[in-house]
Amino acid sequence: MKDKPLILVTNDDGISAPGIRNLIEVMNEIGDVFVVAPDSPQSGMGHAITIDSTLEVSAVTIDEGPQIEYSCSGTPADCVKLAVNEILNKKPDLCVSGINHGSNSSINVIYSGTMSAAIEAGIEGIPAVGFSLLDHSWNANFEPVKEYVKKVTLNILKNGLPKGTVLNVNFPKDEIKGVKVCRQAIANWVEEFDKRTNPQGKEYYWLTGNFINLDKGEDTDIHALDNGYASVVPVQFDMTAHHFIQQLNTWEFND
Amino acid sequence: MKDKPLILVTNDDGISAPGIRNLIEVMNEIGDVFVVAPDSPQSGMGHAITIDSTLEVSAVTIDEGPQIEYSCSGTPADCVKLAVNEILNKKPDLCVSGINHGSNSSINVIYSGTMSAAIEAGIEGIPAVGFSLLDHSWNANFEPVKEYVKKVTLNILKNGLPKGTVLNVNFPKDEIKGVKVCRQAIANWVEEFDKRTNPQGKEYYWLTGNFINLDKGEDTDIHALDNGYASVVPVQFDMTAHHFIQQLNTWEFND
Repeated sequence: MKDKPLILVTNDDGISAPGIRNLIEVMNEIGDVFVVAPDSPQSGMGHAITIDSTLEVSAVTIDEGPQIEYSCSGTPADCVKLAVNEILNKKPDLCVSGINHGSNSSINVIYSGTMSAAIEAGIEGIPAVGFSLLDHSWNANFEPVKEYVKKVTLNILKNGLPKGTVLNVNFPKDEIKGVKVCRQAIANWVEEFDKRTNPQGKEYYWLTGNFINLDKGEDTDIHALDNGYASVVPVQFDMTAHHFIQQLNTWEFND
Repeated sequence: MKDKPLILVTNDDGISAPGIRNLIEVMNEIGDVFVVAPDSPQSGMGHAITIDSTLEVSAVTIDEGPQIEYSCSGTPADCVKLAVNEILNKKPDLCVSGINHGSNSSINVIYSGTMSAAIEAGIEGIPAVGFSLLDHSWNANFEPVKEYVKKVTLNILKNGLPKGTVLNVNFPKDEIKGVKVCRQAIANWVEEFDKRTNPQGKEYYWLTGNFINLDKGEDTDIHALDNGYASVVPVQFDMTAHHFIQQLNTWEFND
């Protein structure tokens, strides 16, 4: 590569989260770093975008380094759209999102703000990856993760990614034995709602739940993570269930 | 079917939107209708869920009919979770979402609150479908759409849907020539940001954009809609790009 790659960094935990600060540190070793990240936590935002409200963007300095940084009032997907189409006004060579505080493996990819930013970049034709560590703590230890983040990033820059595909990378909380390429485990959350009463007597709910994995495959992200490996899942945003089209054509829609 | 099916109805335009009122009317002809829908518009919410805030639910009566209705302060995905796990406290036989005021064809499936509700139901093992009309207007004419909504719904109740699959149904604005089973067109939005200055001198942005379809396939949802047909796309939430796994295994992650 003749020039240093231009790398867009974003996340969903907010621009001051330790996860993104560690990610910026790694990316500064690889390329020219441009950060556009939410000014507040956006976990669970899925692929939300801001249509009915305005967006604000501010140049900020969070800590020392060569990176250029902007905080944005919107969602992770908004950050990518704004970065590419307005602030940076060109396509970066790569978009990295994270490092998320908490898992985005299995069905969590659907709810994930971290992955929505990577997917948004993918939609705009930019190679992209989301990184997540299976530790929700603000004080999570990102040190063991850094060499793998660098390795995955260099692989993407060297090999490129097929159109319509981004990567979802999750790291176990403790020692990392290596990296496994996986499929998304077929698992889901079983919700429980914590019902309470406010001081005015009105009932309200907190969403809680348990993650249930009935997928026994040894090629899943959950299996890799449970066994101490980082999982790399290629993610596509063509959501068509192509295998079902033929059968669906036998249905009586036009009779 | 010995008993009438239990049908959960939701949307993303809010419980009082004409689209959902028309959908409820059709569903009342088919089954026992239970509505849990957002108390305000939630367009563009993608698959957002409410983690960091509380949820409120209220029994409401919007208009005459046998349906039971609740409005909810959360997102469309929250509504489905609350309905299934707390309010209804059992799985309905079907979940229908919409009728959305505006298109959810092609890449819009990713940003769509309407489809996030259908997908959330699918994740929870409930046959589900999202309906959308290509007319953003509050006064959109839903009359021509009703017979097709009924037909699609009866087909789902008769045939079932494979695990992990829901349907995304879009209707053209004008005359409907029939129904076509399609794949999601590979298209995307090219954003433009409308930059303004507020009375205090601070700059802010409105997200705007143009939808660009370079996918010339005649089997896409966009092609069907452009030619006056309703599009039915089977949608899956296993987002794994299975075709890329073999090649990804040749990458140097562990060297």
